[in-house]
Amino acid sequence: MTQTPRRTLDQVLSQVDGPDPRLNEIVSALVTHLHAFVEEVRPTEEEWLAGLDFLVETGKLCTPVRNEYILLSDMLGLTTAVDDVNHVGPDNMTPSSVEGPFHSPAPERDLGAWISAGPERERAVPTVVHGRVLDCDGTPLPGARVDLWQADDAGLYDTQDDAQDDGNLRGLFTAGADGRYWFRTIRPSSYPVPTDGTAGRLLRAIGRHPMRPAHLHYRVTAAGYRPLTTHVFLAGDPYLGSDAAYAVKDELVRRPLERTGGWEMDGPYEEIEFDLKLVPLDWKDGQ
Amino acid sequence: MTQTPRRTLDQVLSQVDGPDPRLNEIVSALVTHLHAFVEEVRPTEEEWLAGLDFLVETGKLCTPVRNEYILLSDMLGLTTAVDDVNHVGPDNMTPSSVEGPFHSPAPERDLGAWISAGPERERAVPTVVHGRVLDCDGTPLPGARVDLWQADDAGLYDTQDDAQDDGNLRGLFTAGADGRYWFRTIRPSSYPVPTDGTAGRLLRAIGRHPMRPAHLHYRVTAAGYRPLTTHVFLAGDPYLGSDAAYAVKDELVRRPLERTGGWEMDGPYEEIEFDLKLVPLDWKDGQ
Repeated sequence: MTQTPRRTLDQVLSQVDGPDPRLNEIVSALVTHLHAFVEEVRPTEEEWLAGLDFLVETGKLCTPVRNEYILLSDMLGLTTAVDDVNHVGPDNMTPSSVEGPFHSPAPERDLGAWISAGPERERAVPTVVHGRVLDCDGTPLPGARVDLWQADDAGLYDTQDDAQDDGNLRGLFTAGADGRYWFRTIRPSSYPVPTDGTAGRLLRAIGRHPMRPAHLHYRVTAAGYRPLTTHVFLAGDPYLGSDAAYAVKDELVRRPLERTGGWEMDGPYEEIEFDLKLVPLDWKDGQ
Repeated sequence: MTQTPRRTLDQVLSQVDGPDPRLNEIVSALVTHLHAFVEEVRPTEEEWLAGLDFLVETGKLCTPVRNEYILLSDMLGLTTAVDDVNHVGPDNMTPSSVEGPFHSPAPERDLGAWISAGPERERAVPTVVHGRVLDCDGTPLPGARVDLWQADDAGLYDTQDDAQDDGNLRGLFTAGADGRYWFRTIRPSSYPVPTDGTAGRLLRAIGRHPMRPAHLHYRVTAAGYRPLTTHVFLAGDPYLGSDAAYAVKDELVRRPLERTGGWEMDGPYEEIEFDLKLVPLDWKDGQ
């Protein structure tokens, strides 16, 4: 019998029989979809080997502080897709969004603290961020923990920038009795993802810019609720519609309001209000 | 609008717009199939990161003399699938089969030469291999070039084995006026693919043995014909039905015949006859 791609696939699948049913399921599905890819695009042998070379080079770029495969997963929307399938919940929950590579332990701070103490504080737009941590029905969650990290007005995180001390533009807050949190900071900037590796080469090849719209990262926890990792994005950013990490969701976009006075601020500033609605651990679809 | 995996995929696809239509096609198809994989298996974030770690480690194992990604492609039947889609031809052609990682330049040899001159010659079953290089209609192709490589009776190629000189169990022959080729050698053995890397770990996890059935590799060229890279396999091998590289095709299996006398041989030997039918360069489907 002449070999066909379908027959080859059947042979592979018939011999997946390890002790872990979940691993068998994952490998079988991956093999099936990759064979479908081969049948669809009919790569030449040169194209196939070029693809494998790309994977080799991507692996070689990875270091303890840089994971080019995670970047590639982000740039192809796969990280967001994995996030999407893992964070199904009620319609009024705050959607999750990808964590990205820049989380690191934040200093514990009091509500209202300035998280910006580097040179950016002299240059950038002062900003007050506040909101509440709530159940999806609006019940405040006092004592919720809000872990916050952001880039500066040049698009750099403290871990990328010698001019910033460790922990700059990061903070770990405890929500008050009414679920409220607030802090003072500067307006973050949009920034490009690293483009000096294989992910950047792929972006250029497919005509894709590397920019992420300006955002602040949140990781929020409260007893009895699912941890929530998400972003708040700033309305008006030119890259909101084309985030290189595909992490924007409409519910996560807030328009900064121009203000003067209040919130213990001197002079003009911008105000961003962002409530976070968590999903109970025991939530089930259909409730 | 709440994000869904399908909406994320549409966003990614809408922004693939590079200057090379073929690259756009390949990237779009790959992204589509990988998103379908995510929707189907719904990997947890831990599973996804474990998968990316596997890819990082696979890249790091690659060296100028070892390509773990090619091995992985072989072990998942993908190399054979790529081979299948690239070598469509008339029903009576000799099917192609994967090249594998062990080709290297062979010494030019006269028809009938012994290609085995290492210690294996004293241990292994003497074997005569002969046949013709033909057009698919049976017309001999005199002057065709037959590049041959094989492992010894322990499953090792010269490049893996200090006891073998370079070029042992390899030969580059020119077919005679009637398209005939022949040479003397020893019977090869089945052997395991390398299992000390990520591909081996995956094989163990899915309960898959790493063995390839005994075979000889051919690369045959003739002016006006498609180059043909293929194997001949030995009937009776216990791994014929479960080749770790999925390279076996029924048309490529030959039963060694026990012989005494003839072919300039002293004592008992085995004879393998294998004709190779090449496809004209101008062959088109439907002819």
